[in-house]
Amino acid sequence: MNYGIVIFPSKKLQDIANSYRKRYDPHYALIPPHLTLKNVFSADDEHIKDIAGKLSHIAKEHDPFTLKAYKVSSFQPVNNVIYFKVDPNPELQALHDAMHHREFMGDEPEYSFVPHITVAQKLSNDEHSDIYGSLSMLGIDHEETIDRFHLLYQLENGSWTVYETFRLGKENQ
Amino acid sequence: MNYGIVIFPSKKLQDIANSYRKRYDPHYALIPPHLTLKNVFSADDEHIKDIAGKLSHIAKEHDPFTLKAYKVSSFQPVNNVIYFKVDPNPELQALHDAMHHREFMGDEPEYSFVPHITVAQKLSNDEHSDIYGSLSMLGIDHEETIDRFHLLYQLENGSWTVYETFRLGKENQ
Repeated sequence: MNYGIVIFPSKKLQDIANSYRKRYDPHYALIPPHLTLKNVFSADDEHIKDIAGKLSHIAKEHDPFTLKAYKVSSFQPVNNVIYFKVDPNPELQALHDAMHHREFMGDEPEYSFVPHITVAQKLSNDEHSDIYGSLSMLGIDHEETIDRFHLLYQLENGSWTVYETFRLGKENQ
Repeated sequence: MNYGIVIFPSKKLQDIANSYRKRYDPHYALIPPHLTLKNVFSADDEHIKDIAGKLSHIAKEHDPFTLKAYKVSSFQPVNNVIYFKVDPNPELQALHDAMHHREFMGDEPEYSFVPHITVAQKLSNDEHSDIYGSLSMLGIDHEETIDRFHLLYQLENGSWTVYETFRLGKENQ
């Protein structure tokens, strides 16, 4: 089964992201707006229990933190993906790193961590240039507290269901 | 903000439900297949923390149980809704009742609890009669263990995001 680990930002930020995703992101109906902490990985039923246990431990070791979405950016020329750029603060980086540590699943991150919330993807070069122009002008400036993350699994139709929520911080358990 | 409380069954049962929902349920893209424990209700940010606390307590007091989806049924003539009928066992009923107790939110259930997983809705009478005929012949016979439920909130586009997962049973905390 395919799993992934994400942060769902507040309803307010999700609603803003969805106002763009509705038109520009083919994954709009498959998953709510999110910040990916760990990309899709495969695990069987037994393994995922072990992973959920480790995530519970990681959640306790990391405190709630402030998420700042501060500008619209793009992965071009690597990918025609437009996103809300999220301030890569130490807390977020540490949370990401804990999920890519050798003791977690033995895998290393494929890319350096660029925390982001995707709002447009699978665009042609012309679409990208148009949409990036408009969204950059509109911009984004949002700040909120993140106190949890979610382990998700993927259904056959490509959509994602939450398996479990993990609250950050010792006091939140 | 709008909230609801549901059980997401296993990937296997969700995939079966989605194979029908894809064609017959306009809510297909808004929420994964689910069994509703508590219908949509409104709460502010403070109130929902209190509710989440109560749900955490309810989860501890109720053990994991077996969910049996054993036939295709319909709410006609009340509603043209076709669903997988779920065995109304005492554990499921007790969980539902705890969320409709006076001490929980002060509200009573509007209808008696008919545990179900919707696979088709908003059908015309003719569609209902056709689809109910085919799905009844195909039937459903599925059993699994349920060990958690989820508190969701609704975005402006009508889709649902998980706020928190609650694991059933003292040992699962």
